[in-house]
Amino acid sequence: MSAAGTTPQRQEEDEPEILSGVFDGRTTGTSIAVLIRNTDQRSGDYSDIRDKYRPGHADYTFDARYGFRDYRGGGRSSARETTARVAAGAIAKKLIAAEFGGQVLGYVKQVGTVCASIPRPESVTLKDVEFLADGSPNLIRCPDHTVVPQMIALIDEVRRETDSIGGISEIVATQIPAGLGEPVFDKLKADLGKALFSLPAVLGVEYGNGFGCATLRGSENNDLFTATRGDDGVTATITTRSNRHGGMLGGISSGMPIVLRAAIKPTSSLAREQETVTRDGQPTTIRTRGRHDPCLLPRFVPMGEAMVAIVLADHWLRWKSARLGQRS
Amino acid sequence: MSAAGTTPQRQEEDEPEILSGVFDGRTTGTSIAVLIRNTDQRSGDYSDIRDKYRPGHADYTFDARYGFRDYRGGGRSSARETTARVAAGAIAKKLIAAEFGGQVLGYVKQVGTVCASIPRPESVTLKDVEFLADGSPNLIRCPDHTVVPQMIALIDEVRRETDSIGGISEIVATQIPAGLGEPVFDKLKADLGKALFSLPAVLGVEYGNGFGCATLRGSENNDLFTATRGDDGVTATITTRSNRHGGMLGGISSGMPIVLRAAIKPTSSLAREQETVTRDGQPTTIRTRGRHDPCLLPRFVPMGEAMVAIVLADHWLRWKSARLGQRS
Amino acid sequence: MSAAGTTPQRQEEDEPEILSGVFDGRTTGTSIAVLIRNTDQRSGDYSDIRDKYRPGHADYTFDARYGFRDYRGGGRSSARETTARVAAGAIAKKLIAAEFGGQVLGYVKQVGTVCASIPRPESVTLKDVEFLADGSPNLIRCPDHTVVPQMIALIDEVRRETDSIGGISEIVATQIPAGLGEPVFDKLKADLGKALFSLPAVLGVEYGNGFGCATLRGSENNDLFTATRGDDGVTATITTRSNRHGGMLGGISSGMPIVLRAAIKPTSSLAREQETVTRDGQPTTIRTRGRHDPCLLPRFVPMGEAMVAIVLADHWLRWKSARLGQRS
Amino acid sequence: MSAAGTTPQRQEEDEPEILSGVFDGRTTGTSIAVLIRNTDQRSGDYSDIRDKYRPGHADYTFDARYGFRDYRGGGRSSARETTARVAAGAIAKKLIAAEFGGQVLGYVKQVGTVCASIPRPESVTLKDVEFLADGSPNLIRCPDHTVVPQMIALIDEVRRETDSIGGISEIVATQIPAGLGEPVFDKLKADLGKALFSLPAVLGVEYGNGFGCATLRGSENNDLFTATRGDDGVTATITTRSNRHGGMLGGISSGMPIVLRAAIKPTSSLAREQETVTRDGQPTTIRTRGRHDPCLLPRFVPMGEAMVAIVLADHWLRWKSARLGQRS
Repeated sequence: MSAAGTTPQRQEEDEPEILSGVFDGRTTGTSIAVLIRNTDQRSGDYSDIRDKYRPGHADYTFDARYGFRDYRGGGRSSARETTARVAAGAIAKKLIAAEFGGQVLGYVKQVGTVCASIPRPESVTLKDVEFLADGSPNLIRCPDHTVVPQMIALIDEVRRETDSIGGISEIVATQIPAGLGEPVFDKLKADLGKALFSLPAVLGVEYGNGFGCATLRGSENNDLFTATRGDDGVTATITTRSNRHGGMLGGISSGMPIVLRAAIKPTSSLAREQETVTRDGQPTTIRTRGRHDPCLLPRFVPMGEAMVAIVLADHWLRWKSARLGQRS
Repeated sequence: MSAAGTTPQRQEEDEPEILSGVFDGRTTGTSIAVLIRNTDQRSGDYSDIRDKYRPGHADYTFDARYGFRDYRGGGRSSARETTARVAAGAIAKKLIAAEFGGQVLGYVKQVGTVCASIPRPESVTLKDVEFLADGSPNLIRCPDHTVVPQMIALIDEVRRETDSIGGISEIVATQIPAGLGEPVFDKLKADLGKALFSLPAVLGVEYGNGFGCATLRGSENNDLFTATRGDDGVTATITTRSNRHGGMLGGISSGMPIVLRAAIKPTSSLAREQETVTRDGQPTTIRTRGRHDPCLLPRFVPMGEAMVAIVLADHWLRWKSARLGQRS
Repeated sequence: MSAAGTTPQRQEEDEPEILSGVFDGRTTGTSIAVLIRNTDQRSGDYSDIRDKYRPGHADYTFDARYGFRDYRGGGRSSARETTARVAAGAIAKKLIAAEFGGQVLGYVKQVGTVCASIPRPESVTLKDVEFLADGSPNLIRCPDHTVVPQMIALIDEVRRETDSIGGISEIVATQIPAGLGEPVFDKLKADLGKALFSLPAVLGVEYGNGFGCATLRGSENNDLFTATRGDDGVTATITTRSNRHGGMLGGISSGMPIVLRAAIKPTSSLAREQETVTRDGQPTTIRTRGRHDPCLLPRFVPMGEAMVAIVLADHWLRWKSARLGQRS
Repeated sequence: MSAAGTTPQRQEEDEPEILSGVFDGRTTGTSIAVLIRNTDQRSGDYSDIRDKYRPGHADYTFDARYGFRDYRGGGRSSARETTARVAAGAIAKKLIAAEFGGQVLGYVKQVGTVCASIPRPESVTLKDVEFLADGSPNLIRCPDHTVVPQMIALIDEVRRETDSIGGISEIVATQIPAGLGEPVFDKLKADLGKALFSLPAVLGVEYGNGFGCATLRGSENNDLFTATRGDDGVTATITTRSNRHGGMLGGISSGMPIVLRAAIKPTSSLAREQETVTRDGQPTTIRTRGRHDPCLLPRFVPMGEAMVAIVLADHWLRWKSARLGQRS
C-alpha cells in the first residue's frame, strides 16, 4: 500500500488571475471575473479521441448536440471545467461566513464498499477531513480515519488493475438560518439538487435520510419540533430533535444542518482496452492514455462544497431582498 | 385486504379552465393559462394548524421565510399546488409526442420494503401501470403486478396504525433524441434533478444505476458503444449495449432511455397524536385531521411524469434554436 | 366642443379577482395572482379582421410569428392586456411608497401640436392630473389646465373626421434613492426603457432632456453636483443643481427625480375606410368598427406609471439584496 | 478645419484573445469567451477623481450603489466596457448574415444642429459610412457627405473651446424576417430599447418616425399593407407601402427595415474647470485630464450596431425554437 499512490497524479498549476471586481483588496460590488488557464494541455496526438467515442464520456453526446467537437480533451464536459466553480465557491464561502457564520464542509463517505461511520455529520471538522491524526495530509478526505487505510488500499488495487471505483460524498452546511428557499420552483433543495447534478459524474443526490426514507414509517421519519428558551426565559429557538429531513422542509431551510450526499460514478477513463465505435460506427477499441485518478471522490469534495456554497449565497441574497419594511 | 382502501380518499374535482393561449382547438403560440380552483377547502376550524407546527410540514419554515402564513392548509407547500404542474405536463407530453415521438412513463417501484422487479424499465406500458390483468384499475400504479397485493396490504396496515409509509418511484422517458441538454449548468440531468426536487416529499433522485454506482468498478459501470446499420448498410445508429448511465452522458441525452428514480418520504400528516411546539415555543401535541393518503407514491407518479415532460420539452425547444444553418 | 366626447367611450368593467398571495388583508410573500376577465368581448362577426390585416395593428406580424391567430380582437397585442400591468403596478406603487416614500406620477404632456408647459415636473400633483380647478374630472390628464380645452378640441376634431392623433406622456418618479440600477446590462434606464417599449403604441422613450441633448454642448448639458448640509452641519446630501440627466447617471439613480417621456402613436383603428390586403395578398379595404379612442394618451398614463413603478420596485429588491454586511 | 482633429485621439490596442468556444476555425456551440485587456490604463495620479465627483459621470451613483469604487477610470460605467459588446456583436452579425442574410448598419445622423439628410435609411451602404467619395476614411461616419465638413468643423470648434457636443445616431437592420419578437414583455422593440439604453450616454431611443408621431394623425401615420406576387403569380409577399412604423408592429418584426435612432449626450468630461463637490460634500472644481473625444457619435456607431445585432440574433434563436412541427 502506498499513500503516494492515492495522490492526484496530475500536477495542475491553477493560477487564478482576477480580472475584475476587486480593487484595493475589496470587492467592488460589480462582477468578479477570474481567469484560470489550463496549463495541462497535451501537445500530443489526439487522433484516438478525435474519431473514437470513449465509453462513459460525453464525446458522443457532444457530437449529437453540436455536430462538431473540440476533441483535445473533454472540453466543457471535462472536470477541469469545475475549477471555475471552486473559485466562485471560495467567494461564496466567505460571504456566508461573514454574513451569517455559515459553513459548508464536504468529505468522502464511501469508496466502493468501504463506508465511513459518521454519526454526527455536523460535528465533522475541516481538520478531520484534511489531516490524519499524525498531522499528515488525509489524501482521501474521509474524516473517519479508521477506514482510510481500506479506502487507500482499494484505490491502489483498482489502479493496479487498470480499473476505477465509485463512491459517495457527504456535504454538510451548518449555521444556515431558517427561511432560505423559494416556495415553488426554486426550492432550496431543488436549487442544490440542480447545482450538484451539474457536476460531472454525479448519478444521485439525496437529503437527510434520502433513499432510506422509502422503508420508513411516518412515525419513524418525522422530526419532532422542540424549543429552547433563551436566557431571558422568553425567546424561543425552534429546532427539531432529529434531522432526518436534512435541514429543509417544504424546500425551505429549517435552521437544522443541511446534510446531503452525492453518488459519484467510477472514473470512465481506463488504462485498459475497452470496446467502442468510431464516429461513423466502425467497431474499434480505445485505451485512455494520460493520468487519471481511479477514484474521483477526493477531488469531488471541493467541487461539491463550492456548488452548495454558491446556492446558499444566492438564496441568502434573495432572502435579504424580501425583508420588506426593513430598510437595510 | 381491501383494494378500496388504497384509493385516494379525497375526492377532488379539478376542473381546469383554459384562460388563454388556445383558440379554435389549437394553441395560438402565446402563453397558455389554466385555472384550477381548489374546491376542497375546509370551511372549518384551523386553530390547530394556525398556532402549532405540524411535524414534517413547512409551517415553521414558511413562518421563518415570510413571518406570516396563510394557515388554511399548506398553501404553496401543499401537494395541491402540483395540479398546475400536471396540467402543464399534459401539454408538454403532447408536444414531445408530436415533435419526436417521445414518451414519459412513471410508476411505483417500491413501497416500504416491498420492491417491484422491473428488469427493463423501457418496456413498461401505460396499461401495465394503470390496469391489472383483469382490467380493474391498478390503484397502486406498480407495473409488477405480483407485488401489488403486498403493497396494498402494507398501505392498509399503516393506515390502520394511523401511520404512513415511504417509497420509490421510477420514471422512464423513451424515444428521446440524443443531444438534449446544455454543456455546463443547464445539463439535462441538472434540470431534471431540479424539477423533481421541486416536488413535495422528494428526498432523493438518481439516474441509471444511481447510488449503486458507488460500489461498482469502471469496467463494470461503463456502457460500451455499439452501432447498428440502417437498411442501406451505411447509416449507423450509435447506442450503448447497456444503460447504467440512465440515458445521459456529460449531462446530455445519449438517445438511450432516460431512467430515474425518486425517493418519497412517508406522509407527514398522521391521524395519531404527535409532539410539537406552538409558534411561541410552547410544547403541545397535534393530530392531523382530514383525509390523507398514508402513502404518497401512487399520487406522485403523475407529478413526476409531468416534471420530466416539461423539462424535456424545454430542452427540445433549446435544441431546436441551436440548429443553425438550417432554416426551419 | 364637448368634454363628454373625450371620455373613454368603451365602458369596461375590470373586476379583479385576487387568486393567491393575499390572506387576512396582508400579502403572504408568495406570488400574487390577479384575474381580470374581459367582459367586453363582442359576440359578433369577426370575418373582417379574420382575413384582413388592419393597418398599424399586429395582425400580420402575429401571423408571421405564429402562423395562427385568435382573430377575435388584438389578443396579446390589445391594449386590454395592460390591465394586468396596471394591477401589478398598483402593488408596486404601494411597496415603493411604504419602503422609501417613492411616488410615480404620469400625465399627458402633448396631444398633436398642443403642448403643455410643465417647467417643474417633480411638482405636479395627482390632483392636478385628475381634476380641473373646479373639481370636475380632468379627462385628458394634462396638469397644465390652460391647454386642456385645446387638447379636447383637437381630439373632438379628429374624432369627427374619423381620424386619430398622437401625443407625448411624461412620467416622473420622486423620492427615489440614489443607487438603484445595475452597472452593465440591467441599468435602471435600460430596464425602464424596456418596460415602456413593451407597452403598445410607444414609438419613443427619452430621459431628462432626451433628444434635446443632441444640440447641446457638454458645458450646457452637465448637471453640476452640489451638497446641502444637514442640521448637524456635517452630514451632506449630494444633489445636482439641475436635472437634465433625468435622475440617472451611468444607468444608476442619482437621487434626483426620474423624468422620462414616451411618444405614443395615433390610434391605428380608424372608423374610415383604409386600404389593405387579405391574408393571401388580395387588395381590399377595411373600416374598423367598434369604439376606439381617437387619442390613446389619457389611457396611457396609468399604463406608463405602472411599468415605471414595477421596475423601481424590482430594482429596490435587488438593491436590498446587495446590502451585505447589514443583516436586515 | 482639420480632419485629423476628428480622429479618435486615444490609440487603443484592443487585441481580443479568444479563450473558448472556437476550435479549428469554427465555433463549437459552447460559450465563446473573448478577453480584451485594457492597455490604456494610466499609471498616474487619480487623486482628483478618487475624491471628486465628475459632473455627468457615474462616480457619485456608483458610490451610492456600492459604497466603494475603483476610481481608476469609470470602471463598468466607462465606454471601454463596450468593447466586449462589439466583440459579441461581430459574432451576432455573422450569425444573422449566414442564417437569413440580415444586415445591421449604423451611422451618424446629427451632430449638434448639423443634421444629415438620409431619405432612405435602408439604402445606406457600409462604404458610404466608412469612406468619403475620394476613398479617404469618413471619420465622422455620416453617410451624407455633404454635411461631413460642417460636422467636423463643429467638433473642432467645441474641442478648441474645451467643450463637447451631442448628436443622434441612426441604425438600420435590413432583411430581417417578419415574426421576430415575443408578444408581451420581450417585444422586439422592448429588447432593442433595453439594449440601446444599456449603452453609456444614450438619453433617447425612437423607432420609425418616433417622437414625430406625436403630431401626426392616424390617417397620416398608418402604413398601408400591400402585396407583391411572386413569379408564379400566386405567392404573395406582404409589405407596407411606407415605413413610419420602423419595422415592428405589436413589437414583432414586420419584414420591413428596422429603423431606430438614439440620442447621445455630449461628452461629460471637459478639459475646462467645472464646479463639483468632494465625496464629503465640500465644494471644489475639477478639470478632466487625458484624451476625450468631444463628440461620442462616431464611436457610438459600432456599439449601437453591436447591440442591435445581438438582440436580433437572440430573437432569431427564439423564433427557431418555436417552429414546432418542423424537425430542423
